[in-house]
Amino acid sequence: MPIQALLFDVFGTLADWRSTIAREAKALVAPRGHDLDWEAFADAWRAEYQPAMEEVRSGRRGFVKLDTLHAENLDRILPRFGLAGLSEGERIVLNHIWHRLDAWPEVSEAMRRLSAAFRLGSCSNGNIAIMVDFARHNGFRFDAVLGSEVTGAYKPDARAYLGSVEAFGLEPGDCMMVAAHSSDLAAAARCGLKTAHIARPNERGPGKGEARPSVPVDHAARDLADLAAILGA
Amino acid sequence: MPIQALLFDVFGTLADWRSTIAREAKALVAPRGHDLDWEAFADAWRAEYQPAMEEVRSGRRGFVKLDTLHAENLDRILPRFGLAGLSEGERIVLNHIWHRLDAWPEVSEAMRRLSAAFRLGSCSNGNIAIMVDFARHNGFRFDAVLGSEVTGAYKPDARAYLGSVEAFGLEPGDCMMVAAHSSDLAAAARCGLKTAHIARPNERGPGKGEARPSVPVDHAARDLADLAAILGA
Repeated sequence: MPIQALLFDVFGTLADWRSTIAREAKALVAPRGHDLDWEAFADAWRAEYQPAMEEVRSGRRGFVKLDTLHAENLDRILPRFGLAGLSEGERIVLNHIWHRLDAWPEVSEAMRRLSAAFRLGSCSNGNIAIMVDFARHNGFRFDAVLGSEVTGAYKPDARAYLGSVEAFGLEPGDCMMVAAHSSDLAAAARCGLKTAHIARPNERGPGKGEARPSVPVDHAARDLADLAAILGA
Repeated sequence: MPIQALLFDVFGTLADWRSTIAREAKALVAPRGHDLDWEAFADAWRAEYQPAMEEVRSGRRGFVKLDTLHAENLDRILPRFGLAGLSEGERIVLNHIWHRLDAWPEVSEAMRRLSAAFRLGSCSNGNIAIMVDFARHNGFRFDAVLGSEVTGAYKPDARAYLGSVEAFGLEPGDCMMVAAHSSDLAAAARCGLKTAHIARPNERGPGKGEARPSVPVDHAARDLADLAAILGA
């Protein structure tokens, strides 16, 4: 049975979050007289991501969407960078950068090719509005935004994968999870999905990213255009 | 504040369900030696739609998705048409016709125009897989499939509208509900959404459909291309 649908991780796999956050935060805040290491700022914000979701995954907190966690995480890190004085309005604008992340260079064209051959779903921990705005910003569309907000669960919770598969009306083996993170793919494989790894060797800075998977996968691709070629799209 | 997103009713507004169900059911079943009034068959199937959802809306039944209700409704009507002998496999294939309904003639092109100007969400009682397959079958994409399965509520339950608005990260007044049914638009307006009526005078057969709204609306359009022109898309 051929693959019917591709499910995509987004932050890191499709989106170059680090460069966009660093550049756009600088553009917004530097004119107010702040000079700081903007890549370190992006890294610090992102470092709060897993701990915040873990509160939900562990059951200590009910499901809240990522826009809310991002805002709380921003409040947490601003004092470390001398930015405790930013207004609520400035914080809202900063938080919205996550809605207009740049895709990696080959992604938009590759997504349009893949869309002709497969149903495309986001299976991200980002909420629906982030995914909608990200896809529009980069000139493609998902067939459906799935993942955390639709399933009420954060990856690697199995419900995030299985709920996304079920929303498409498919079986896990009909679907392929596409991600730049071996842990994500390992969790998807445990749920019965096929897996494709996308190399993003510079995701978290030069040389700080997965150049290849550390777990068994069905396909390992150099980038999304390579995956499209592998899948014959 | 200009409109940011359009939320679409689908069955009747974007999709010509009656002609497609009649034609495709005939194509599947007539070769097995059955001759019947296929439009009446489509109407009978559709007539079970509101009562089945009312079981959920009333709270007598937990949320189940429309694919399941359609299948149950099909089982209910088949004996009336001398089709009680259809196999489970044949019933599954019949039920899947709802996934590949034809859009009304102007819809695909108009959706592509509207997509350039607005976020487009389905706000249908159909489940995610039906919406994904319908859009692909007709050559366009929603930005997000919202509505019943995402909100766990069937229109005109207010949660279906307000949950869809909230998924986009917007306020009700930023969104416009687009439908061929005055009751749908009245419910959306009560939630604070803007409204656009699409004339579908032949939805349920010649002359059996709304040629114009019976409630106050923000826009009344001849068809979706007319709405795109009205909205400057």
